[in-house]
Amino acid sequence: MNDNTAHTPVTVIGLGLMGQALAGAFLKAGHPTTVWNRTSAKAAPLVAAGARSAPTVGDALTASPLTVVCLTDYDAVYELLDAEGVEPAGTTLVNLTSGSSGEARTAAAWAKRRGARYLDGAIMAVPPGIGTADAVILHSGPEEVFEAHAPTLGALGTVTHLGEDPGLASLYDVAGLAMMWSVLNAWLQGTALLATAGVDAVTYAPFARHIAAGVADWLPGYAEQIDKGSFPAEVSALETDARAMDHLIEESETLGVNAELPRLIKAMAARAIAAGHGGEQYPVLIEEFGKPQEG
Amino acid sequence: MNDNTAHTPVTVIGLGLMGQALAGAFLKAGHPTTVWNRTSAKAAPLVAAGARSAPTVGDALTASPLTVVCLTDYDAVYELLDAEGVEPAGTTLVNLTSGSSGEARTAAAWAKRRGARYLDGAIMAVPPGIGTADAVILHSGPEEVFEAHAPTLGALGTVTHLGEDPGLASLYDVAGLAMMWSVLNAWLQGTALLATAGVDAVTYAPFARHIAAGVADWLPGYAEQIDKGSFPAEVSALETDARAMDHLIEESETLGVNAELPRLIKAMAARAIAAGHGGEQYPVLIEEFGKPQEG
Repeated sequence: MNDNTAHTPVTVIGLGLMGQALAGAFLKAGHPTTVWNRTSAKAAPLVAAGARSAPTVGDALTASPLTVVCLTDYDAVYELLDAEGVEPAGTTLVNLTSGSSGEARTAAAWAKRRGARYLDGAIMAVPPGIGTADAVILHSGPEEVFEAHAPTLGALGTVTHLGEDPGLASLYDVAGLAMMWSVLNAWLQGTALLATAGVDAVTYAPFARHIAAGVADWLPGYAEQIDKGSFPAEVSALETDARAMDHLIEESETLGVNAELPRLIKAMAARAIAAGHGGEQYPVLIEEFGKPQEG
Repeated sequence: MNDNTAHTPVTVIGLGLMGQALAGAFLKAGHPTTVWNRTSAKAAPLVAAGARSAPTVGDALTASPLTVVCLTDYDAVYELLDAEGVEPAGTTLVNLTSGSSGEARTAAAWAKRRGARYLDGAIMAVPPGIGTADAVILHSGPEEVFEAHAPTLGALGTVTHLGEDPGLASLYDVAGLAMMWSVLNAWLQGTALLATAGVDAVTYAPFARHIAAGVADWLPGYAEQIDKGSFPAEVSALETDARAMDHLIEESETLGVNAELPRLIKAMAARAIAAGHGGEQYPVLIEEFGKPQEG
């Protein structure tokens, strides 16, 4: 980071735990930082650390060429930024408020109408991680807007640009969370099964880690099958997998372990088999995941 | 592998696709290999490659100090090996037949009564992988029996010993499969979500891989919380996760993507929160996974 970047002023609107962490990381990186929060008491520790507390949202917006917004939801964003006396025209908004891809696209269109540049973002980190490379922050929207501000945003963590569609950050975020919870749930399922044989969680965990990382390595190759729409059973046919799924269900039920995750795994595969895909490979299940539940 | 090991005779009973691959790997490693199958025609290619086809199961068992069994199920194992004229006493059986932990323990007790040494095993590979380091083969049973035969079994792939309880191989196997299917399903969920924004599977896959491998790295640390029975919210509290789970469900439903996996993720967390664990960290869900479904 060069001196010019470090001297770029930045504004943070919304000082919940995450907003405070964001403003703190900008301050630490040397950026003149303006903050605003509905209850101004939350600004006090940041002001003590060198931030300027703006008297109004309008003032906060005009104080810096870049404003990072982190509020409870999108309604709160419009309530503050679409209000009388607030002029977003000419500034750049990076909205890190949690929401759906649809809300992100709507907000991007709103910003465009109001003459502001807009990036939507999603934070894949918890507040204490902000300011470290472990904090991954996803952005979507116009590439040139991202490129212009990436050096400043880099104070927050590892920043990435996913594409022009402003809904992408939100979609990647929930997709990544689905992966996170799924790895954790599968690990818990295995931990519960092994506990019935007196195996400690710490003893089992390295095995689960090894399998998860190994299967992760298959994904780029399996993705090619999806994009080609062709699922030859190079490794294993779905109907073979399905028999092993029955073992997982039976083992869980017999040992008094929750069997809902095993049963869902089997149900998805059984539908694909019923649709005639039993001789194809696992990624053919994309057809089941890509449509709403039947019946 | 030294010359003595390579000259250890071995028998393979059951010549399905997997059994053929096992016998082929032993032959390739230089082991005098005896094979037996109910329909002897399946032995022909192996005999052409140098195997000896035993006329009876009893003869097959006495031909080698080590017999690897790979049949359809445990009933088939007893039907063949517990028959009149078959004498397992004094030999070592490695049973790679798929089955439950309970079946493995019962078979180990049967073998003991009949005077045979017994290891139960599970093959985490498909037939074409056998004979390569990628083929992980799990074993459980007496450690000294495993140690005595590990050099010979090593011809099949990467062989590991999990512990004395003969049920462990089967439990680790289904636990590992649960992880495999869960990573794949979460990836399919994300792929389906991103497809609604026109993102190719190949474009999304590296992100899913990165998240899966990253979360896998947390497991050993999270396992310590389970063994201690203490789940302080060092990273995130379950009730915070639950709000993001709602985003995942809503996004899936709005975009016409199957929402059953997201709803199961939320249901498990909601039960833990209802049980008073909303302020604790994710691994507290072990209490939900470790008991049968309620209601």
